[in-house]
Amino acid sequence: MPVRVGILGATGAVGQRFIQLLDDHPTFELATVTASEASAGKTYREAAKWRVNTQIPDDVAEMTVGETAPSAVPDDVDLLFSSLPSGVAREVEPAFLEAGYVVSSNSSNDRMAEDVPLTIPEINPGHLDLIEIQRDERGWDGALVKNPNCSTITMVPTLAALDEFGLESVQVSTLQAVSGAGYSGVTSMEIIDNAIPHIGGEEEKMETESRKLLGEFDGTGIDLHGMDVAASCNRVPTLDGHLENVFAETAEDASPAEAAEAMRASSGVDLPSSPEQLIHVFEDFERPQPRMDRGRGDGMQISAGGLQETTDGLKYNCLAHNTIRGAAGASLLNGELLVADGWV
Amino acid sequence: MPVRVGILGATGAVGQRFIQLLDDHPTFELATVTASEASAGKTYREAAKWRVNTQIPDDVAEMTVGETAPSAVPDDVDLLFSSLPSGVAREVEPAFLEAGYVVSSNSSNDRMAEDVPLTIPEINPGHLDLIEIQRDERGWDGALVKNPNCSTITMVPTLAALDEFGLESVQVSTLQAVSGAGYSGVTSMEIIDNAIPHIGGEEEKMETESRKLLGEFDGTGIDLHGMDVAASCNRVPTLDGHLENVFAETAEDASPAEAAEAMRASSGVDLPSSPEQLIHVFEDFERPQPRMDRGRGDGMQISAGGLQETTDGLKYNCLAHNTIRGAAGASLLNGELLVADGWV
Amino acid sequence: MPVRVGILGATGAVGQRFIQLLDDHPTFELATVTASEASAGKTYREAAKWRVNTQIPDDVAEMTVGETAPSAVPDDVDLLFSSLPSGVAREVEPAFLEAGYVVSSNSSNDRMAEDVPLTIPEINPGHLDLIEIQRDERGWDGALVKNPNCSTITMVPTLAALDEFGLESVQVSTLQAVSGAGYSGVTSMEIIDNAIPHIGGEEEKMETESRKLLGEFDGTGIDLHGMDVAASCNRVPTLDGHLENVFAETAEDASPAEAAEAMRASSGVDLPSSPEQLIHVFEDFERPQPRMDRGRGDGMQISAGGLQETTDGLKYNCLAHNTIRGAAGASLLNGELLVADGWV
Amino acid sequence: MPVRVGILGATGAVGQRFIQLLDDHPTFELATVTASEASAGKTYREAAKWRVNTQIPDDVAEMTVGETAPSAVPDDVDLLFSSLPSGVAREVEPAFLEAGYVVSSNSSNDRMAEDVPLTIPEINPGHLDLIEIQRDERGWDGALVKNPNCSTITMVPTLAALDEFGLESVQVSTLQAVSGAGYSGVTSMEIIDNAIPHIGGEEEKMETESRKLLGEFDGTGIDLHGMDVAASCNRVPTLDGHLENVFAETAEDASPAEAAEAMRASSGVDLPSSPEQLIHVFEDFERPQPRMDRGRGDGMQISAGGLQETTDGLKYNCLAHNTIRGAAGASLLNGELLVADGWV
Repeated sequence: MPVRVGILGATGAVGQRFIQLLDDHPTFELATVTASEASAGKTYREAAKWRVNTQIPDDVAEMTVGETAPSAVPDDVDLLFSSLPSGVAREVEPAFLEAGYVVSSNSSNDRMAEDVPLTIPEINPGHLDLIEIQRDERGWDGALVKNPNCSTITMVPTLAALDEFGLESVQVSTLQAVSGAGYSGVTSMEIIDNAIPHIGGEEEKMETESRKLLGEFDGTGIDLHGMDVAASCNRVPTLDGHLENVFAETAEDASPAEAAEAMRASSGVDLPSSPEQLIHVFEDFERPQPRMDRGRGDGMQISAGGLQETTDGLKYNCLAHNTIRGAAGASLLNGELLVADGWV
Repeated sequence: MPVRVGILGATGAVGQRFIQLLDDHPTFELATVTASEASAGKTYREAAKWRVNTQIPDDVAEMTVGETAPSAVPDDVDLLFSSLPSGVAREVEPAFLEAGYVVSSNSSNDRMAEDVPLTIPEINPGHLDLIEIQRDERGWDGALVKNPNCSTITMVPTLAALDEFGLESVQVSTLQAVSGAGYSGVTSMEIIDNAIPHIGGEEEKMETESRKLLGEFDGTGIDLHGMDVAASCNRVPTLDGHLENVFAETAEDASPAEAAEAMRASSGVDLPSSPEQLIHVFEDFERPQPRMDRGRGDGMQISAGGLQETTDGLKYNCLAHNTIRGAAGASLLNGELLVADGWV
Repeated sequence: MPVRVGILGATGAVGQRFIQLLDDHPTFELATVTASEASAGKTYREAAKWRVNTQIPDDVAEMTVGETAPSAVPDDVDLLFSSLPSGVAREVEPAFLEAGYVVSSNSSNDRMAEDVPLTIPEINPGHLDLIEIQRDERGWDGALVKNPNCSTITMVPTLAALDEFGLESVQVSTLQAVSGAGYSGVTSMEIIDNAIPHIGGEEEKMETESRKLLGEFDGTGIDLHGMDVAASCNRVPTLDGHLENVFAETAEDASPAEAAEAMRASSGVDLPSSPEQLIHVFEDFERPQPRMDRGRGDGMQISAGGLQETTDGLKYNCLAHNTIRGAAGASLLNGELLVADGWV
Repeated sequence: MPVRVGILGATGAVGQRFIQLLDDHPTFELATVTASEASAGKTYREAAKWRVNTQIPDDVAEMTVGETAPSAVPDDVDLLFSSLPSGVAREVEPAFLEAGYVVSSNSSNDRMAEDVPLTIPEINPGHLDLIEIQRDERGWDGALVKNPNCSTITMVPTLAALDEFGLESVQVSTLQAVSGAGYSGVTSMEIIDNAIPHIGGEEEKMETESRKLLGEFDGTGIDLHGMDVAASCNRVPTLDGHLENVFAETAEDASPAEAAEAMRASSGVDLPSSPEQLIHVFEDFERPQPRMDRGRGDGMQISAGGLQETTDGLKYNCLAHNTIRGAAGASLLNGELLVADGWV
């Protein structure tokens, strides 16, 4: 029996990726799509300015777009994916939760809320147990799970691998693709022959979300990881794929070879969208590169490379596809975990 | 009386910048240009594939290109600028020094040699006194002065300003323009919609040259600065202008405001190519940007911005024009200092 | 005595170019700047998101932005430049004309109106005489003059030169820079690693405006040139500078050499913003190129190249800076002509 | 029984595409790869700097690269694909033909030779009969077939469709991707924020090859099509996918709708690499776009759009993937035709 799913905010850039990834999904069946009032009532083909470079699945193209409200979602839908703008999500998600829906959300609101699991299935699946606390405190029948920001999720799997040596401090610089800002987020006049050394709110997300993801669930809440994280975020003229330079200090010395071994040992989990190996580590220092490597593992594998010693620790580079592993794919994988763990 | 100067390796990308910058220079008069054997004997117009977006000065266009050998340089030339490939420079520069020429060189060979001054006139002009030791040891009548690598020179003025608080450790990530690799150094297939997380030798240059530049001349040699430096270097699809993210720890706490004040207090020196203010500090966190800010101070001013506290220190961004402040302009400014200090 | 001028719509991309070009203009003095209601009352520095890569002139930065209404413009302003969006211009320009202002407008509305001169001073200055008819018909004290679209103005000077051989038919393909669509007109997701074979309304503008520009004023109106023009317009990932491929048939055979001679013979006019030579013709078939050649003649010279015979005529390429010669500089030059001819 | 095939010049950009396309080919089995002397004896993984964004098939990676000489090719290889540089191909291809090999070549030499078929299987399969004449005249046991240049092949299927109305004259402007020049053919300094209005030899190829492709085989040779073709070729900052603007005049009037219908009626042929529909015609004038549409039909379908009337005929745009339909895929498809028609 397939799980019937819906997408809240289905016409935007991440919404389109959801549709692309759900096409031929082994266990999920797309049953409903919602968007803003202006789009409601149109067919999806009319409502969405389709930008993904595969074609709209025919059946989705003919779906009627619903309003983003619980009343517009069929009762037999079991799981909702949200790619709403965070301002809208903040207003609208609670109504779905009260109505009993399980929501796997990519929106940035509430990621650091104490009773909201922020999860990457390969890293901290146990954080889903926060849902019990969430239901107790909020009186919801549904459940809200978030995935981290695209820049955070790119580095956290590598940090998780290094944490066996006791992570103490992390400095990270990002080279982020324009798709991370949505279809119209970065104008061509801003970015051609240029780079922008600031992305509003992004640095703080990396600094806080990473400590929650690597934190411990102690039965009542998440005890944040104690490492210091400092991030500098840059926008560059790349379409997809965030590349990051990490400088890490660990309590116990880790050689580049040991660090690479720890990364390579990070395995995927038994869910349809998880790659077999979580992190591919390159020996060639010129890799990973966004255009060459963002597609590894259908966009769900993390790439790393350039592992070298510094006086105080290690430096290395990592990369992930920001709208697949860093957005729609991340929510989808959380949805698969919610089903596997019996929350749906 | 103008100083008569020559350019060794005048047809390449940096050589063309030398010609552009020497046009209308107040005290230097271009008397000779040299290039490889294949170009010798041609007019400059024929020999150079001119790529700079101003036109070749008419008088230079008609100059006959000489061989890169002391015998081909007129006797009344007082000062030579070198933009030879480092492999060629290693072979050829000594011959010019033995022949008594003063050479201000942008080539990367010998930058870390113990008796070769590596200078930025606004930062460590006193290092020129190494020339006495150089002459003693090598038996040269001439003098060899180097400027640092373009990625190093972008951050060192900001580090020099912060050193009043006692620099202890620096992590730096670079977003470097394609022009840094020379005209044919980066193919379009490599870099469009992409970024490359490695530039051969660049990280080591930043890690060592910066410690020499901020070191002390103790009468016999340069005592390297004790700070730790770790660099990650990236190539991005930008034409000119290197942008760098710096994380710095200092012995004494420095607030972002104090750091900005120290940077703003860095003044230029009384030489034609030095800007009035060495570092422009932006309040707007979205600046500096390569395309918008590389031209400040005719390409000779450093820009900084994004100053923020981290748990252990500061983070900020800096930017310079890599083929002006970071190459031809750097050598030219060293040449001006050599004249002002009486070495020419 | 300087002519006091104002800019309607001064905060946009073309408005910023006006300010840049008016800085140090020999005869014009910027007296007032207007923008939308949202900006009125702010200083120009606050109201404009400054994007041009020179700095805002200090005196302009501190000007108070006025509303775009005749009542907000000082009485001693003699000449207004308009870079309003065409929808706004359609509503607002008549009020200024009724109030007696002379307006040199870059906005696309009314360019083909029978009593509105569409002029390029080097090509059809006599069309200004339409102003008499305009005043008669509309009862205006002021005068409205338009410059053509940026894609039209790039090719028309070359067509004017070829018309001595009797132009019969023109096919033109354009490679247009993103700045032609305004600062936010083309998103980075649309254009990186891409090209778009359509620009709304552009093809028709080229097909009609060029025939008006090369038409004859017969005392009562403009007799459109009889040539056929077919245009295909493309957007490419270039910042500034429109490049165009032209295929032209003439009644009388013209060899490439004769065509080049005719183009080279096109001279500028005796106005401050007109270049000495109107068209620079390259022998090198790889030129003109947008980045290399858009700055020729301070952005006011047309470049041409690649002149070759075809079975039926000629093919060649031409290029102009779309936001200088193709927009702000075009209006400015028309303003200079209006002053020289005594209309101001 | 699979057909055993080899690739001459397997390490270059087109060679890599051959390997990618041959992976999982239904009837071809890659048996041998050759390259220059410098690469011979190495494994393919060592010899090729792999640039395609899928991974090297494991079995190919471990193949030993042979010299490009008949003696180095196993006897049981039936069909060779050539992506040699044309200068090398001119020297080397005859040796393979004398040795009896059938060669489907992408190299540009000999495309216009009178006894060499230049074929697109969906357009002019009958031209293969020239092989009889070729064998007679040259005394070869093998056979040499060429596919056209990437810029030619992009437009010819659309011209073939229009030829039912009697093609008389064609003007075409191209916006060509950098991959058409090979991996190192266009430097990033040349093309970022730029366009180049000339590609050496390309215009002539379009003007001659298209007339041969649409010509008639009269039993002794190809009678070139009588239409006039004039081409202007531009390089733009796009990775893959050539976009072309065509202006066409036909003897009989064709409306845009009739032209679209003729294009849509062009079907593929019954060969593994031929798409079901040869030309996809868009109604949306903003399409086709290189990044969005180059992948249609696995890179083998032609896209068209923007069909409009002009005074003398039609204008429209077309697009194809230049290294698949325009190079490796074109040779592969010719190979499939050679097998189907019994030449192998």
